[in-house]
Amino acid sequence: MAEPAGLDALATPRLLLDRDRLAANIAAMGGAARNAGLPLRVHLKTVKCAEAAAMLREAGVDRFAVSTVAEASFFAGRGCADLLYTTPVTPAKVAPLLALGPAAMAAVESLDMARAVSDAAAALGGALPVLIELDVDGYRGGVPFPGPEFEALAAFAAAAPGLTLRGAMSYSGATYGAADAAARAGIAAAHDAALAEAGERLRALGLAAPLLSTGGSPGVLATPAPDGANEFRPGVFCFWDLFQAGLGVCREQDIAISVLATVLSVRPDRGQALIDAGALALSLDRSTARQAVDWGHGRVCDVEGAPLGMLKVSGASQEHGVVTGDAAALARLRPGQRVRILPNHCCLTAAAYPAYDVISGGVLTGDTWTRVNGW
Amino acid sequence: MAEPAGLDALATPRLLLDRDRLAANIAAMGGAARNAGLPLRVHLKTVKCAEAAAMLREAGVDRFAVSTVAEASFFAGRGCADLLYTTPVTPAKVAPLLALGPAAMAAVESLDMARAVSDAAAALGGALPVLIELDVDGYRGGVPFPGPEFEALAAFAAAAPGLTLRGAMSYSGATYGAADAAARAGIAAAHDAALAEAGERLRALGLAAPLLSTGGSPGVLATPAPDGANEFRPGVFCFWDLFQAGLGVCREQDIAISVLATVLSVRPDRGQALIDAGALALSLDRSTARQAVDWGHGRVCDVEGAPLGMLKVSGASQEHGVVTGDAAALARLRPGQRVRILPNHCCLTAAAYPAYDVISGGVLTGDTWTRVNGW
Repeated sequence: MAEPAGLDALATPRLLLDRDRLAANIAAMGGAARNAGLPLRVHLKTVKCAEAAAMLREAGVDRFAVSTVAEASFFAGRGCADLLYTTPVTPAKVAPLLALGPAAMAAVESLDMARAVSDAAAALGGALPVLIELDVDGYRGGVPFPGPEFEALAAFAAAAPGLTLRGAMSYSGATYGAADAAARAGIAAAHDAALAEAGERLRALGLAAPLLSTGGSPGVLATPAPDGANEFRPGVFCFWDLFQAGLGVCREQDIAISVLATVLSVRPDRGQALIDAGALALSLDRSTARQAVDWGHGRVCDVEGAPLGMLKVSGASQEHGVVTGDAAALARLRPGQRVRILPNHCCLTAAAYPAYDVISGGVLTGDTWTRVNGW
Repeated sequence: MAEPAGLDALATPRLLLDRDRLAANIAAMGGAARNAGLPLRVHLKTVKCAEAAAMLREAGVDRFAVSTVAEASFFAGRGCADLLYTTPVTPAKVAPLLALGPAAMAAVESLDMARAVSDAAAALGGALPVLIELDVDGYRGGVPFPGPEFEALAAFAAAAPGLTLRGAMSYSGATYGAADAAARAGIAAAHDAALAEAGERLRALGLAAPLLSTGGSPGVLATPAPDGANEFRPGVFCFWDLFQAGLGVCREQDIAISVLATVLSVRPDRGQALIDAGALALSLDRSTARQAVDWGHGRVCDVEGAPLGMLKVSGASQEHGVVTGDAAALARLRPGQRVRILPNHCCLTAAAYPAYDVISGGVLTGDTWTRVNGW
């Protein structure tokens, strides 16, 4: 373990993780799940690190979701047996998923792909546990539900030699475009009702106790009394970000990661400063672009994390960030000064870094937590 | 070296590098530089790999630019001594740059930062070679030129104990917003004239043979007869991308990298297909958004690289890409099919991957070339 050092001396850009905020976010989501009476299956695509998974396990979480085979293999080797691979599975992913044991599941959303996956698993002498992904809100993927395609896919999955049907899942991504909490609650209720109905259909096919998983942190928090879902599958809540704060689902002071950067130059005459965190360090996610406050490529805070007026990163090339938005705050910046940038979308910003530099009580702990990037 | 395998069997997403196209792009830029009578300093921030640097050296390139200290250290250890670190240098970067020897240079663009960098270098008993970055077109950074700030910075750098003034540089990023070749030529000519004038100012300060470096592939190609610059500093030409093709600076068939992805599902009724390459696999660069053809998050081609009609990746979440844009081409997609996505911005797309899978003559060579990501 390296010695703790001051943030003022670090070479930048670096990705900071506030362990205290992560712990508080885990505790808060745990409370919401207990109130709803449902277990959590936490999506590790956001944190992608063993230490955060260990904190989740200490908080009682024993179900996890992953978005890549690399994550699945990494976490299965670290005590996370009950894993759901949520990116729709393809034949090339079957062998590494089967190798993780019978508790590792995958998502299917089309009959054609389910056939190919079953063939691949059967050829390996195995049967892959699967959940059927339902399209409830037209957000992205999933089999249309209810309808004949779902019925055909469910009947196939229940009987296919290379599949073991375990249940159904949905992802309430449409909450990201909802105007307010009432709209989010409506979307979440639609997902819950669909899962309830899917459960009935799956029981009719002989599946005694289907797993019915609903995902998406805003939707999960908008489902206080589920009738259909029997587990919650949030992920982004571990870190939160400006987009989620813009939705009103968290507060800015809950955001657990930030990018440490250095001010390169300040040009009040041009209304801009340059920092050494650009497109690669921040990602080009612009999720807040259509929210009430557009934070560009991130909100600019001082080295301790306090916002510097309304300064934001409004432009980003590969390694340069252009800071604008508040003349008074801009004029107080100094070349060489360290700043912290709050991310628009924590999952994408974090993906640029091999590891987190962990802070606690506002200072570096000296710990670095390695991320499982790539596929 | 792994055995070559068919693209149809690879787990996806993967980043393919067409070595033949890379070689042709290097040869073409080499020819342009020879016609102009100037040496090339190739920016390695695009390729970030030892094997491409070796190809460049075999083609006669012996000057290089880098955007991170990680690149600088990596390439300096692989025979690239004459290196320019183009992200404005800060005190925290001085020690690792000085360690690379007297041929490694850095960029400065403000008097305040130059003072801090000189102090840091002098405290280490060294002097860092520097180029002054000029702001010619207001694109991003650089000291205003001509003007008193440049004069003060140049005088300081010429005399500072911790700096060795080597010359000046500019980056013609404004060509990216130019309407046509004539507009690019005008911007490039302004950069060349500024470098000529800066050279005179630096000679008047006693610098006998200033290095005068101009960068940006479109600008370089628009400067057939330089009067001021005495080296060209392009980078993106190694791979090219859809944005550069949209500018008319290259052809789509010159683009040397692509993302191999798998079709997850096809929904002609919704006008979309899903692929397993999303925001992390493609980057969220939207450089083509304001061009004549907006390619979304990338143009969709078949596994051999031939465009599939006008299909593009119009939506991207973390691991999912949504393909739309051409009903006839969409209807011909099949779940499980491999496709290739041409990148909007090659530098940003490549950054998501630890390595390239190299192809030549249209097939995998079995080589993987490791990238120097991070900082």
